[in-house]
Amino acid sequence: MIDLRSDTVTKPTEAMRKAAYNAEVGDDVYVEDPTVNRLEELAAEKLGKEAALFVTSGTQGNQIAVLTHCKPSDEVIMESNAHVFLYEGAAMSALAGIQPRTIAGVRGAMNPEDVKAAIRPEDVHFPETGLICLENTHNKAGGAILPLENMEAIAKIAREHNIPVHLDGARLFNASVASGIPIHKFAEQTDTVQFCLSKGLGAPVGSILAGPKEFIDRARKWRKRLGGGLRQVGIVAAPGIIALNDMVDRLAEDHDHAKKLADSFANIDGIEIEGQVETNILLVNVKGLGVTSEEFIEKLKGEGILTVAFGPYTVRFVTNYDVTEDDIDTVINNVRKLV
Amino acid sequence: MIDLRSDTVTKPTEAMRKAAYNAEVGDDVYVEDPTVNRLEELAAEKLGKEAALFVTSGTQGNQIAVLTHCKPSDEVIMESNAHVFLYEGAAMSALAGIQPRTIAGVRGAMNPEDVKAAIRPEDVHFPETGLICLENTHNKAGGAILPLENMEAIAKIAREHNIPVHLDGARLFNASVASGIPIHKFAEQTDTVQFCLSKGLGAPVGSILAGPKEFIDRARKWRKRLGGGLRQVGIVAAPGIIALNDMVDRLAEDHDHAKKLADSFANIDGIEIEGQVETNILLVNVKGLGVTSEEFIEKLKGEGILTVAFGPYTVRFVTNYDVTEDDIDTVINNVRKLV
Amino acid sequence: MIDLRSDTVTKPTEAMRKAAYNAEVGDDVYVEDPTVNRLEELAAEKLGKEAALFVTSGTQGNQIAVLTHCKPSDEVIMESNAHVFLYEGAAMSALAGIQPRTIAGVRGAMNPEDVKAAIRPEDVHFPETGLICLENTHNKAGGAILPLENMEAIAKIAREHNIPVHLDGARLFNASVASGIPIHKFAEQTDTVQFCLSKGLGAPVGSILAGPKEFIDRARKWRKRLGGGLRQVGIVAAPGIIALNDMVDRLAEDHDHAKKLADSFANIDGIEIEGQVETNILLVNVKGLGVTSEEFIEKLKGEGILTVAFGPYTVRFVTNYDVTEDDIDTVINNVRKLV
Amino acid sequence: MIDLRSDTVTKPTEAMRKAAYNAEVGDDVYVEDPTVNRLEELAAEKLGKEAALFVTSGTQGNQIAVLTHCKPSDEVIMESNAHVFLYEGAAMSALAGIQPRTIAGVRGAMNPEDVKAAIRPEDVHFPETGLICLENTHNKAGGAILPLENMEAIAKIAREHNIPVHLDGARLFNASVASGIPIHKFAEQTDTVQFCLSKGLGAPVGSILAGPKEFIDRARKWRKRLGGGLRQVGIVAAPGIIALNDMVDRLAEDHDHAKKLADSFANIDGIEIEGQVETNILLVNVKGLGVTSEEFIEKLKGEGILTVAFGPYTVRFVTNYDVTEDDIDTVINNVRKLV
Repeated sequence: MIDLRSDTVTKPTEAMRKAAYNAEVGDDVYVEDPTVNRLEELAAEKLGKEAALFVTSGTQGNQIAVLTHCKPSDEVIMESNAHVFLYEGAAMSALAGIQPRTIAGVRGAMNPEDVKAAIRPEDVHFPETGLICLENTHNKAGGAILPLENMEAIAKIAREHNIPVHLDGARLFNASVASGIPIHKFAEQTDTVQFCLSKGLGAPVGSILAGPKEFIDRARKWRKRLGGGLRQVGIVAAPGIIALNDMVDRLAEDHDHAKKLADSFANIDGIEIEGQVETNILLVNVKGLGVTSEEFIEKLKGEGILTVAFGPYTVRFVTNYDVTEDDIDTVINNVRKLV
Repeated sequence: MIDLRSDTVTKPTEAMRKAAYNAEVGDDVYVEDPTVNRLEELAAEKLGKEAALFVTSGTQGNQIAVLTHCKPSDEVIMESNAHVFLYEGAAMSALAGIQPRTIAGVRGAMNPEDVKAAIRPEDVHFPETGLICLENTHNKAGGAILPLENMEAIAKIAREHNIPVHLDGARLFNASVASGIPIHKFAEQTDTVQFCLSKGLGAPVGSILAGPKEFIDRARKWRKRLGGGLRQVGIVAAPGIIALNDMVDRLAEDHDHAKKLADSFANIDGIEIEGQVETNILLVNVKGLGVTSEEFIEKLKGEGILTVAFGPYTVRFVTNYDVTEDDIDTVINNVRKLV
Repeated sequence: MIDLRSDTVTKPTEAMRKAAYNAEVGDDVYVEDPTVNRLEELAAEKLGKEAALFVTSGTQGNQIAVLTHCKPSDEVIMESNAHVFLYEGAAMSALAGIQPRTIAGVRGAMNPEDVKAAIRPEDVHFPETGLICLENTHNKAGGAILPLENMEAIAKIAREHNIPVHLDGARLFNASVASGIPIHKFAEQTDTVQFCLSKGLGAPVGSILAGPKEFIDRARKWRKRLGGGLRQVGIVAAPGIIALNDMVDRLAEDHDHAKKLADSFANIDGIEIEGQVETNILLVNVKGLGVTSEEFIEKLKGEGILTVAFGPYTVRFVTNYDVTEDDIDTVINNVRKLV
Repeated sequence: MIDLRSDTVTKPTEAMRKAAYNAEVGDDVYVEDPTVNRLEELAAEKLGKEAALFVTSGTQGNQIAVLTHCKPSDEVIMESNAHVFLYEGAAMSALAGIQPRTIAGVRGAMNPEDVKAAIRPEDVHFPETGLICLENTHNKAGGAILPLENMEAIAKIAREHNIPVHLDGARLFNASVASGIPIHKFAEQTDTVQFCLSKGLGAPVGSILAGPKEFIDRARKWRKRLGGGLRQVGIVAAPGIIALNDMVDRLAEDHDHAKKLADSFANIDGIEIEGQVETNILLVNVKGLGVTSEEFIEKLKGEGILTVAFGPYTVRFVTNYDVTEDDIDTVINNVRKLV
């Protein structure tokens, strides 16, 4: 099977497995696991933040960020198709009691003027705007890179209104590698950042939440309440260190693979590329083929190729570490054959 | 002062004051206040619902509806400018832990196809769609009447997906009087209905939440938790009975007044009527005058006329029981003079 | 019927009805109702607090206090039989997400040392102690007066730990009248106070939440979310002013009546007075009569006397404005006769 | 260092590390990790439950259980010193909106009559009793085994009132090994069970939540919201399988070690054993030595022995896989020396 459903499906590398085997461990609830401590320091340093916290998933990182930044009844501004809004089970409202205020963006980027207009003035009828949440790269927009200038403009508005900003950077390293902008340049626009070790970077489990030390101290308590306070977590942190140290640059391959797919598909009648391909995600519209996304996916599956639906006629392909150049060729050939 | 800020500002009539004075009362926490019991029966009957509950405000009625219909993490579909979304302090998320899923409508009416598309399929990443919430008349859309056919189409989709529907009918009697459609025809489209006694109907305090008896029994408990379980509530229920019995038909006057204002303003250069006037709310855009809504409102206030801002250049006028035909003329003259 | 179920059942006096009839009103959501403004100032003054807020019930006042003082996951220390714990539908946990930490007291008074020991130290496993909640008089303890010294001792501990204190003073005026201690002496021990206009003071509806101005400003927003932002609320605030001005001193009568009942019952074989009678609540144990509280209550009801169960063998009698000296004699005779 | 602070500090065995290294993995959010699937089946089978779910900690298992069993405003009955009440950051109230109703037990066991009396009858003032939560072995009671008969009696009451029961069995295998009662006999008393792989069983990370299949399906969604939906989780599930298969019987050693410590300490003047030692936890009262628990712990630390405070004069010792017979002798000698 060639698995293009998500970059979350990547299997740990041999080096990661060895790191897990050899990991020096301790009880992280007592903050005594040397490996996770090392991972957290490394992650904070790379992002240019004071402190970082290992969390078990991107969802957990985002939810802890909201729980720590906000109080119930706050409104959180985010793009209409943000992952936190669409794919996290409404956890923000269920756990933190916040109201999402969604703004339709262009390729995942909200117009700063729209953000400004959505900030609530003081009035007994209104919630208070407690947080602005950005996503880079933007999953639902097809791995679109949020331009640094867009982030800067929104960050400026946020500062003027004394509102914190959180970055769902599940795939922030993809944005950095593809744009050539250092990761810390993105991270410095926002108060807190979450990124995943388990997607393109290939670690089996885990994400990082980073921000000011005082924030991370409070976040640690919310992590405990969500059940994310683990014990000998070095076993999973060790592969995370390898992900951060050795797997970032190779994201360029995934981007190349995605572009190669896009270029080939562009020449196939009935297939339309939605938006442009900037990183490792490719959205393909199959309406012109006279089939639904589900039908197309089923056909591909018959050829040993796995993808997911992202709309009634939209199919998402995500290139990843376990998909080789040869696999890409196989996919192209099979799609041509199917059409 | 001619107060056109809202129909909530209406003062109780002499008949209402007398009714309060004479009200037969009891302890409503023990369900022993004969006047509130009478009001609840009357309201249920008019709406064609099994049971009704007196609540202290429209916000309380809506919030209790959500708390009773939903469980935390549910998603509630509503129009982008719904009152429950914009003006109730994010209480739905804060108290009930639900995530609002907003859909931009036309004059407050969501496209049924959009509603259908927003209903969540079963997936571990997704919240469940727990409720669809409609608003008729729609405040932010300028008192627009939600067409009965629109309600029917959405109700049909809801039934097919086994999702309840709640109607924020704060001004439902305005919709009924203006359209000539009996109130119960609107109410029968939705499982539960909230309407206000304290707006155009002129009662000093209170709203009604109506629905199936089993629902109202559970709603009563949520009302108690919100502190809406009152004691000798007949004092405020008595004016509510007068509101329901004697004040409905006269809403036509408010509608006439709003249309008269609109017709006159339409002839004033620089003033634009937003949408059309169907009931007692008029939205006026003053951008063409080269002023902001706040500036225009300040000027009007200087002439003894009160209105509110509904956007940077939008001013809302709400006709109501305390605004006479003469007042309307005064307003028209003053606006002409000001321009 | 002689209704001794609660002092909540009192009907408004003629003066209160007239006050409702004549009340000067406005829209309190715009803070423009002169009568409620007057009531709030009067209440704040009597309590010696900066500001006060009219709320529709004691439950609403307590819940708003918790919502405004605390953040979700805080622990709130209270007596094991506190009204907020037993009789408010677990609203504190449901709405504010706080965990009650109960301490068994003596006649409603927690031992200050127990309070001190229950305050949480800093630890990743622990909630933070966000509030201490006192109740005076203590309903479940039979209208027991919380001694001023007990309140002082707990207040001192709270200050040392920087924890706010809220007083559920639903019947605080009873404590004041019975003890001769001015109401403001009790109120000055705690940051915020809630008291009821609708119990012994006889108003048909309403309570007051008082505290620092900054606190009340935030509380006003939570009141709106709970649906307690009313319109022409002067109609119910006017009787509240009479309650505060004219009905306080007469609570002494209710206390005399309760003591008279207790003294007479004490001489009846098989009936035992639980604790002592300090205010207007009397708890009677009927186990010695070989009946349950429910059976005893049913018998009394047959004689036109209403009471409630407060345990399997405990019957609560609450004297109130609508129960006269003659009624008390009738009750005594009937109980004697029944036994 | 001899670490007796908790059995959570145990380091993974060589076999566990190898299992992690070799683990067959997949994406568990897609339920495709063969190793975690195997662990879940194995755990369900051992407990005699339909289904099981891997969670990252005991806290997460307990919180998901409460979120899945209850609705906000429910009351949950539990022992006064239950772990979920004392040590989980008030998460139950913060996340699930439930009110804990605590009952003081004897060695962690609530009197069934007290449980029965605490169940709420139907009344508009009352929450509904949504869950009864037991803990076996009971941590704060010094590893006390909840007698099977106690569990049966409470389970019977729960069934009669149609209330589900959850078992916090973080150390349930200790109860089983020490009592000789098969694990499934305990588990069959309750609807759902949580137990830890990471305490006495020595796995680095993880717990199991087990129950009816329909329950586990819903629990899976709450796990996702809490961020416990992991990817290539086989890396940590593989050591969990070894924990379940190979590490249960050896808990007897930990129990022997704890008894040996207790027997030796019993002969030391000034040291008192609190309660009895049934499993791997020993509570020692050092008041007779004229020191506080913190002071005593500091002294022990100076000798290379780690313990934790469980009260002002109570020190907890937890024997575990990483503490050998020799270590026990060293501890005994050092304590003797210190005294």
